[in-house]
Amino acid sequence: MSAGVATGLITNAAGRRVPTHVNGREAAPYRGVNQHRSTGNKARPPIRSSSDYPTNGDKRIPDLETALRLCGLRDGMTISNHHHLRNGDRVALTALQTAARMGAKDLVWFPSASFPCHEPVIDLMKSGAVHHIEGSMNGPLGDYCSHGHMRGLGVLRSHGGRWQAVQDGEVHIDIAVIAAPTADYFGNADGSHGPSACGSLGFALADSVYADHVIVVTDNLVPFPCIPWQIQGNNVDYVVEVDSIGDPSMIVSGTTQITRSPDRLRISELVARFLRDSGIMRDGFSFQAGAGGIALAFVDYLAGMMKQANVKANFVRGGSTKYLVDLLNAGLIGYILDGQTFDLDAVHSIASNPRHVATSPFTSYNFHGKGNFASMIDAAVLGATEVDVNFNANVVTHSDGRLLHGIGGWQNCLFAGCTILAVPSFRDRIPVIVDEVTTVTGPGELIDIVATERGIAINPRRQDLFDAVKGKGLPIRPIEELQAEVEKICGGKPAKPRLLDRPVAVVKWVDGTILDTVWQVVDDNPYAPKVSVGE
Amino acid sequence: MSAGVATGLITNAAGRRVPTHVNGREAAPYRGVNQHRSTGNKARPPIRSSSDYPTNGDKRIPDLETALRLCGLRDGMTISNHHHLRNGDRVALTALQTAARMGAKDLVWFPSASFPCHEPVIDLMKSGAVHHIEGSMNGPLGDYCSHGHMRGLGVLRSHGGRWQAVQDGEVHIDIAVIAAPTADYFGNADGSHGPSACGSLGFALADSVYADHVIVVTDNLVPFPCIPWQIQGNNVDYVVEVDSIGDPSMIVSGTTQITRSPDRLRISELVARFLRDSGIMRDGFSFQAGAGGIALAFVDYLAGMMKQANVKANFVRGGSTKYLVDLLNAGLIGYILDGQTFDLDAVHSIASNPRHVATSPFTSYNFHGKGNFASMIDAAVLGATEVDVNFNANVVTHSDGRLLHGIGGWQNCLFAGCTILAVPSFRDRIPVIVDEVTTVTGPGELIDIVATERGIAINPRRQDLFDAVKGKGLPIRPIEELQAEVEKICGGKPAKPRLLDRPVAVVKWVDGTILDTVWQVVDDNPYAPKVSVGE
Repeated sequence: MSAGVATGLITNAAGRRVPTHVNGREAAPYRGVNQHRSTGNKARPPIRSSSDYPTNGDKRIPDLETALRLCGLRDGMTISNHHHLRNGDRVALTALQTAARMGAKDLVWFPSASFPCHEPVIDLMKSGAVHHIEGSMNGPLGDYCSHGHMRGLGVLRSHGGRWQAVQDGEVHIDIAVIAAPTADYFGNADGSHGPSACGSLGFALADSVYADHVIVVTDNLVPFPCIPWQIQGNNVDYVVEVDSIGDPSMIVSGTTQITRSPDRLRISELVARFLRDSGIMRDGFSFQAGAGGIALAFVDYLAGMMKQANVKANFVRGGSTKYLVDLLNAGLIGYILDGQTFDLDAVHSIASNPRHVATSPFTSYNFHGKGNFASMIDAAVLGATEVDVNFNANVVTHSDGRLLHGIGGWQNCLFAGCTILAVPSFRDRIPVIVDEVTTVTGPGELIDIVATERGIAINPRRQDLFDAVKGKGLPIRPIEELQAEVEKICGGKPAKPRLLDRPVAVVKWVDGTILDTVWQVVDDNPYAPKVSVGE
Repeated sequence: MSAGVATGLITNAAGRRVPTHVNGREAAPYRGVNQHRSTGNKARPPIRSSSDYPTNGDKRIPDLETALRLCGLRDGMTISNHHHLRNGDRVALTALQTAARMGAKDLVWFPSASFPCHEPVIDLMKSGAVHHIEGSMNGPLGDYCSHGHMRGLGVLRSHGGRWQAVQDGEVHIDIAVIAAPTADYFGNADGSHGPSACGSLGFALADSVYADHVIVVTDNLVPFPCIPWQIQGNNVDYVVEVDSIGDPSMIVSGTTQITRSPDRLRISELVARFLRDSGIMRDGFSFQAGAGGIALAFVDYLAGMMKQANVKANFVRGGSTKYLVDLLNAGLIGYILDGQTFDLDAVHSIASNPRHVATSPFTSYNFHGKGNFASMIDAAVLGATEVDVNFNANVVTHSDGRLLHGIGGWQNCLFAGCTILAVPSFRDRIPVIVDEVTTVTGPGELIDIVATERGIAINPRRQDLFDAVKGKGLPIRPIEELQAEVEKICGGKPAKPRLLDRPVAVVKWVDGTILDTVWQVVDDNPYAPKVSVGE
């Protein structure tokens, strides 16, 4: 402990060295699953008065600059955005660039996730307008952070963790800028209609409820009332109309294609068989699967098995795609509880089918609520960049140490009845099963199954699952055996990443504690500014 | 001011003597429309942890007593209920009687409204289990309060004021007991389906969000997920299944009949003509009307005029009835933004028509939000027990001083573009237009029109409305002239109520300040306990 105090680092219950302070604020170390007791009370947004808002409800403001000025933009503020427009988003960058042009310095950007389209935020960090990013950094921004160029520590949270942080007052949003595919002049907004439709707007909900100031930006202003609304105008200060909030072709990004790799198809099929043969696939069951190629193929295999066995799922949670919509329409699943809408079929479905329901991270994931949907799922099928022999897994860094992915809902999904990592045993001749993951993003005790093309490893904690599939002909193998086999193929264990002993980001657990640290990767740039780890 | 300090009473901006303290808490006097600046921050409910709730989502508890015990029921707690089941409600009384049987004392009952079916709460007040009621007291409970029998002061709030009070932390709900016509075991709940369907559950929403503990009581448990949900299970602690939450015949109470009185039909027609001839009735306009006989007849007349003029309303707010549903289905109105669902046709409509939208007092009425829908309405047609020559109006007491009605959304609706009181000029030979109302429930500056069967009085502040209807043949008359005419018919001004100088309840304004006091009526019972007015 004394070493921790001396250096600002402490070893947590996952055995990881983590900062005691993050960006100047004390941060509790991870204490184990269900070991950290939340206390205290939720954040308390300011009380407003209707007498300060137009009685006719028309909150339109000519442009974003005026809206930011009216919100009292000043140095050091936290600006938030949602990522439902994904790599097609035009609003977040415009908001930050506008703020920079207005002379704002040292802003904290708090997106629910960032994408390659946000790479120009690097220029804003270089110029001093943006101090650092708290939020998932997919691609270039993660790489920038990895090399130690950001002035503050990156803070990575799950979708549920982001809600928890805002709700618990860990993050105070000064100005939320919400891109809305449809809105009325009062600020009621929805994501499922309009030229830039993206489906659910759930990631913006906490921002709308808890931020001091809320700006809705839309390219599809409709007459009051915007029905349905997912964002309530009663939480919105200003509405700004723009020509376009994003590039529709990138909003619905087309990443949602079933894998064609025979190895990955085999993984998908093994996972589906595991669910079937273990008895998890039974009438009224539920599952969650992402939008990656393996997950989609899994859904396809599972659907075939469900049809054959005449089994219907009660509900499916998570990101929605054409594949899930087809199951919904075929009556194979009762409801889609949608957190993120990934393709046009899903957008059309959520806009028209009452059984395709928009949810929010509060409903689905927030660990500091009175339960959430994620723990009610029978089986969640997830990915990982690495998994170790103790079933700890990593989704944020690559084995070279670079931070290239956000957490998404991944941590939250670990609370499912059966959590399955569906991963290739190696990528680019680098083994995925390792002695110790570069960054612990999920504790092994919550990960039940690692399914690879070479066989399925069951976490020894889950004797019930061993028993359930005994004699069913599935290739169940110890994880160490899979590891050894892959190491032979790849010529040994993966090379250790070259890291400096200098944190560049932290990974929060769902309860707000610090689960692990992302360390600076070795870099040739001697001019990299220093990151402060607790002051 | 010194007199106020000495006696605990102060004269407010409406010229009314009001307590400086209410039930031991300081209370700000009314300062005028838009004159009280809200400051500070909203209430902050406790942070909970999902680790304390069942991971499978099943929060069912065998009975209400067990649920109350698990909520930590103790003396002095505030217990809340909603009134969507109206005079058919069985849950509120059961909850209070159960708490009393468990030995709880001095409870504060905080219903969104109470009805004659809740009369047995008088026994609980006599026995000491319930200390006092904060909420609308329709009928017997209001009468009981009027006679000074309640140990605390009654606090009357509008629907919006109730949200404001909870949101701003003026009222802290310890345990919310929410009657749910449909719910799943996680606590997601909805009002529009099931044998006890009542439509919207909006009045319970603040309770679910802000209460320390939330119990959902249902007689229609459905498999997870209850879709749609208006109450989110993530805010719910326990779910209790019972045989019946209410009497369906009384929930949808059949009070919603068009008046047959020729005088009242004339009032209704005059109001409709006023809207038409003033130009308020134009394409895209909006209106709100209640479920009383005059309001329903008004809707009927207006519908005829809209058809004739080929005019469509954009939306209608407020309590919904068969009459509004017919207009919606006929395409004469675009949307019903529903606060309360009054009959079976309306219940079926809200359950099936996406243009019939459930709202909450937050959306519609809360004055301490970033605007609300009520001020966006072009015209609101309301009732009153009395209105004075300065257009101040009363909806809570009768001219004999007895408190017999709640405020409902009435105060909130006064913010409409044109507020119309549609009232008979006298009732039971007692003039409705008076020199000074018994209880000011709404300030005259917000009341634009008083429409009686003898003519229409326009508030002198609204020269624009005089101009708009000039030469249109409407019987526009000074309010004093109407008053004089009615006094002749009735044989003079109404008798003054016989009141003691002892407050029994207060009327809150929409901003939480005290607008007026309800005084004890003369009573023959010398054993009436004393009410404490600020301690």
